[in-house]
Amino acid sequence: MQFGESLHVPVTHRAAGVVVLNGAGDILLVRERGLPGQMGKAGLWHIPSGTVENGENPQDTATREAWEEAGVRVRLNTFLGALLGRFPDGVLVLRHAWLAEPLEGSVFRPVLGHEVSEVRFVSEVEFGTLYATGKIRMYHTKLFYEEALRVRAAMRRQEAGA
Amino acid sequence: MQFGESLHVPVTHRAAGVVVLNGAGDILLVRERGLPGQMGKAGLWHIPSGTVENGENPQDTATREAWEEAGVRVRLNTFLGALLGRFPDGVLVLRHAWLAEPLEGSVFRPVLGHEVSEVRFVSEVEFGTLYATGKIRMYHTKLFYEEALRVRAAMRRQEAGA
Repeated sequence: MQFGESLHVPVTHRAAGVVVLNGAGDILLVRERGLPGQMGKAGLWHIPSGTVENGENPQDTATREAWEEAGVRVRLNTFLGALLGRFPDGVLVLRHAWLAEPLEGSVFRPVLGHEVSEVRFVSEVEFGTLYATGKIRMYHTKLFYEEALRVRAAMRRQEAGA
Repeated sequence: MQFGESLHVPVTHRAAGVVVLNGAGDILLVRERGLPGQMGKAGLWHIPSGTVENGENPQDTATREAWEEAGVRVRLNTFLGALLGRFPDGVLVLRHAWLAEPLEGSVFRPVLGHEVSEVRFVSEVEFGTLYATGKIRMYHTKLFYEEALRVRAAMRRQEAGA
């Protein structure tokens, strides 16, 4: 039988972002100001990420948002996954993230300053505290960070063995 | 507010594969034999792809399946997307695909011959006919192929302008 169109589940809202780690395994986060109509996220931390625009490839979204929100020019390395979620109103959202490497030209401050108030590396321990106190915007950010640490550990094992 | 764990939608079944195009824009497809218990797919065509195993990165799945099913050594280029679907029993599945480039060492025949009976390039016109007659396994294959042609056209425009 053919798995036809009736078995397709359309997901109209997609987002994409980057996990950037430093040598200590800290993760680069941005703190949102919250635009008018989005005040529920004001003050919360997340990875540089945003909505995949119509016709945009999620990789290009991730690269664009890394620059706009965090002032980081990136090369996307490993795909960390696509995670499915719902907004509080029930609408499905698919979030993509890549483990990314900062390139020359990165300034590590928001380029679109009206959206982001702060950009900094957060340690694994501090991340745990921020998450537990509701200061990390999304559970998916936690899953992407955990996957990034796993991927990095595997890469280091491979390099050590090579 | 935090978009916490209650807004996460777990997808336990994931698949990943590759779209390989030739110069004419034909797509590389494999024809499945159908293993015992999977006879519903016998004789149908799909892209080289398969299940993401536990702990496996979808990129590695795509690369592995390209070799096992089609004898193609690939470099993954552009991410073509992650598409959500359901199996006929209602279980969610997330399918990932990359536009991939064949590398030296490719043999273009099944390496795991018990799963695949045939490997060949199919033109856009023939693909349309195969799809319309129910011979393409998945609607998602059609969407990935369309996206690959769009990505390739955009790359060519960029190269021509550069």
